[in-house]
Formats: sequence, structure tokens, C-alpha cells
Amino acid sequence: MEKHNIPQLLDIQQAHQRIRAYIHRTPLQTCAAIDAIAGCQIYFKCENLQKVGAFKARGATNAVLKLSGNLRANGVATHSSGNHAAALARAATKVGVKSYIVMPSSAPEIKKAAVRTYGGEIIECEPTLAAREEMLIKVVNETGATFIPPYNHMDIIEGQATCALEMWEENIAFDSILTPVGGGGLLAGTALVTHYLNKKAKVYAGEPEGANDAWQSFRAGSLIPVYQPKTIADGLMTSLGDITFQLIKTHVKDVFTVSEEEIVSAMRLIYERLKLVIEPSSAVPLAALLANKEVFAGKNIGIILSGGNVDLSKLPF
Amino acid sequence: MEKHNIPQLLDIQQAHQRIRAYIHRTPLQTCAAIDAIAGCQIYFKCENLQKVGAFKARGATNAVLKLSGNLRANGVATHSSGNHAAALARAATKVGVKSYIVMPSSAPEIKKAAVRTYGGEIIECEPTLAAREEMLIKVVNETGATFIPPYNHMDIIEGQATCALEMWEENIAFDSILTPVGGGGLLAGTALVTHYLNKKAKVYAGEPEGANDAWQSFRAGSLIPVYQPKTIADGLMTSLGDITFQLIKTHVKDVFTVSEEEIVSAMRLIYERLKLVIEPSSAVPLAALLANKEVFAGKNIGIILSGGNVDLSKLPF
Repeated sequence: MEKHNIPQLLDIQQAHQRIRAYIHRTPLQTCAAIDAIAGCQIYFKCENLQKVGAFKARGATNAVLKLSGNLRANGVATHSSGNHAAALARAATKVGVKSYIVMPSSAPEIKKAAVRTYGGEIIECEPTLAAREEMLIKVVNETGATFIPPYNHMDIIEGQATCALEMWEENIAFDSILTPVGGGGLLAGTALVTHYLNKKAKVYAGEPEGANDAWQSFRAGSLIPVYQPKTIADGLMTSLGDITFQLIKTHVKDVFTVSEEEIVSAMRLIYERLKLVIEPSSAVPLAALLANKEVFAGKNIGIILSGGNVDLSKLPF
Repeated sequence: MEKHNIPQLLDIQQAHQRIRAYIHRTPLQTCAAIDAIAGCQIYFKCENLQKVGAFKARGATNAVLKLSGNLRANGVATHSSGNHAAALARAATKVGVKSYIVMPSSAPEIKKAAVRTYGGEIIECEPTLAAREEMLIKVVNETGATFIPPYNHMDIIEGQATCALEMWEENIAFDSILTPVGGGGLLAGTALVTHYLNKKAKVYAGEPEGANDAWQSFRAGSLIPVYQPKTIADGLMTSLGDITFQLIKTHVKDVFTVSEEEIVSAMRLIYERLKLVIEPSSAVPLAALLANKEVFAGKNIGIILSGGNVDLSKLPF
């Protein structure tokens, strides 16, 4: 990773200007009842209320808008069955660019329908990572589309950083900001912009025990992917990439892991008290905070609720 | 009802000043996907994010704050097992006033716990309306507490009117505003403030078919209470009072009834698309709009999501 490639503060601010007509400026919500339980003052950044129901709209939109006219003509492509797929399809359609989304044939129909609704073309493949990557290469070769990866890419990280940028613009003296960590795009972007804007503030990640590659990598000092992750937080199954890991290693204070029970319990608290529909991944930072109250006691804390795309018929309560 | 008792615009504005330090100014949320389905532009006023999880915080706080010092010393009382009970307990405790809440012994433990958490004293009675009223009279006689009814009271209506006042302050040219109707406090307040601020705008109510006293009364021109109401929208079981009915008759354009299936379907849409946790009552106005799309086609519509207190283990999906 060349250091001069790392997005600077001005780059992130320009990304925010670039995407702001295409995304929501999501609200910060507070809840006295949760504060009383947590022993600190928490501001929840509601990316579950973001376009496509997740922060992924930011990075995907930024990456598509940064493409030159030449490249736009050939379209964009990715492989994903999650929020990045929907976000990329929507961002591309908004600016008249074609999008090819490689999805496993086993992906739920509701996820395929979302991509189609946003105007993406779905290319199905066998449900293995090898088959997905192979199919993606085929699509890119045949169409000339530009591959927009879900997290391990500077334009994506720059876009995700606009979420914490909006939080800092609210003039709240955050002592710490917590995000979930899967591939690390949101965490890296949050850590980067916080590093620029407040050298004293700390950024922490929450991660499920059953997909603890960031926790392991952070401690080992080198990338340790997790094979066969298992957690209700389906958005956090992916492992860090080399780019996100370098930024996280440099700018993140610590990674906390939480159990499945702690995730479900925090998720329930957010439904009952904040009255917000979130996907399980979004509950992971609050679960991490509640399991480590002494670290945050009496402080001003920002928590990013990363998304709200959940199968209502499979809620764990 | 003496006409000079009806809250004027200045009264409602003063009520808003009075209560604003005790309540949230709740956000207005929009959703492109729901707009596409509905064929109009909808702004959802999120009273599910209000203190105690419902608009009831407004009226109860207004009524308590308007009590003179003399009366405050003896406390306040009500009979309710719903949001008004929690709202009154909280409002009273906030200003150092004692609150007596008469609740049926059969009320769910979670509702009793909420009242206790807010500092209310629960007095249990048999689960009949007669027993509740008898016990309330007893409590009032013994303590000198002031009875604060849940809806049929000018201070309550004045307080609930501050919700639509905030909506109009956003400078959106609403053609219509829809609210649910149970006892009619929210509906009457909304109709009143809308009448003052925009003579052309219309206020409509949504009501469950299984508790259709407002629909019947509106058509008959006289109060027709419903006995044995039956609906998933548990906040809308109560019938109109004489005060709320007079205001509704004068200032509301129409009442629409909706089936249980329509309520559940609209509720699901709000969870899936708006990512908000609401109680079934809150889904009734959207259900009414979707069943009468031709009335609202292409217009700017405000919908009040009245509350978010729902038993998550009993969601209808």
C-alpha cells in the first residue's frame, strides 16, 4: 500500500460532497434508558435508515461517481449477496451505468429481488468463493466492466469514512466511536477520519467470536482470515483485506469480540428501546460496549448502526 | 363544551414551549420505496421515537406542568394500562409530583414494570372498566390527586397538538395529515392545529374495522361507542369521548376503516422499508392510505407513527 494513496481529510470531504445528493444524512439518536444501562452517553448513527438500508450506499456511490466516462460506459461488476450488491446496483443505475452482480444461485430470492429492483443484472454461479471469483473474472473480461470490491479498495473506504465525518460535524465531543467489523471498510474509514479530526478520540471495533479474524489479526500483527465463520451477524462473515487491515492496525485502538448471546441481547435492547429495526451486525458494537463498560464509563460514545436489512420472519426473539 | 375552552393556536404554541425540554422533537422520515407503492410523497412523524415510546408523553407532560403548585402537592392519578400510564408517571416524576396509576391486575408485567420504572405507584383492581373507575374515584378521594384522563381533556388535546405543530414548522406543504384514532386526543389535536395553520389541508383518521366507533360516530353525527372491540391495534380499543368527538366532527375530513390484514401488511412495510419498530396502531394510517390511494395520489402526506411499544415476541410476522 502506497502511503500517498490513503485518502486524506480533504479527499473524504470531497467524497461527501460527491455523494451527498445520492444518500441520506442519517440522524444520530440517543436513548436515556440505554445510557442508564451502559453507564455512558451514546449517540447512535442510524445507517439502518440509509439508502438501501446500509452504510454500503456511501462507498459504492463514491466508487461509481469517481469512475471516468470511459470506464462508466462499460459498467461495473462485483460479487456479493449482501448490502454491497444492492448498493452498487443502485449507485450505478442512478448515474446511468450498467451493473453486473455475481451472486450464488443459493442466495435468498429477496436479495436477488432487491438487486433487480435497483436495476442490477444478476449473474448466478455455484455457491463457492472460487466459483464466484471465477465468474466475476469472466464477466469483467467479457464486458470490460470495472470491478468494485465490497471493502478492500480506497474509494470504498473513502466513501464509508463519510459516515463518521457526518458524526464529527455534529460537534459532539466523542471520546470513542465503535463500529462493527467484517471486511473492515467501515472501520477503516471511521478510524481514518477520526484520526484526522480528533487525535485524542479512539476507535474500537466489535466482532462476533464466531468470525474473529480482525481480533486475531490485530493481535498477531498480520492478516489471519477466518475459515467457516459462524454467527447470526451475517454481514460480518467476511475477513479483513490487506488494505483495510493496514489502516485498522495503524488507527484502531482495539477489537472486542462478543458472543452470540450478547449480540442477540443488544439487538433486542435496540428494538425495544431505540425502536429501530437493525440487522444483527448492527448490534455488535453495543454488545461490545456493554461487555466492557469500564472502558467507556461516563464518556461520550458514538456507535454506528450499520444496517437494517433483516429477515423479519427470522428475528431471534 | 364551551367554545372558549378550545385551545387556540397560541395555547398550543405555549404548550410546545412548556413541554419541549421534557420531550424529543421527533424526526420526519421519508422512504422512496413506500412512496412508489403509495403513489404520493409521505412524511412519517416518528412518535415511536418519542419519550416513553409514544406521543402520549406530550399530553401528559402538558397536563402535569399546567397544574398549580397546590394541586401538584397532592399528585395526579389515572386509570390506564397503556402508554398514557407510563407517560403520566414519567411526566409527574420529572417535576417531583406523585402519580397513582390504577391498572387491572391482569395487565402484563412488562407494562407494570414500565410504570414503576418511571416512578408511578400502581394500584391494582379487577379487570373491568367499572372496577377501574371505582378504584380511581377511591384513590382520588383518599389522596386529593388530580385525575388526568388519557384523551378527553383539553390539556391533553393541547399537548398532543404539538406533534402536528412540529410537522407544520418543517415548512412542508402537506395536503393531508393522517393519524390513527382511538380515544381521539391525537386526532383532535392534529385537526385543530392544522385548521389554524392551513385551511386547505385536510386531516383524516385511520381506524380498525374491529373498533370502528369513530367511523360510526362520524357518520351518525353522534357518539356511538364500540363494545367489545377486537383488533391487533391494541392502542385503538378505546372509544371517542364527548370533547374529542366534537372537535373531530368539526375539523376532520373523514375516517377510514381498515381490516386486520391491511394493518399487518402496512406494519410489515414500515418495519421492512422504514426500518422502524412501531406498535400495530401506528400502521393504521398507512393502511388507510394504501386502501384509498386515489384520494392521496400525487399529494404531500403527513402520517403520524403514534408509538413503538410492542411485544417483540408477538410480532405478526
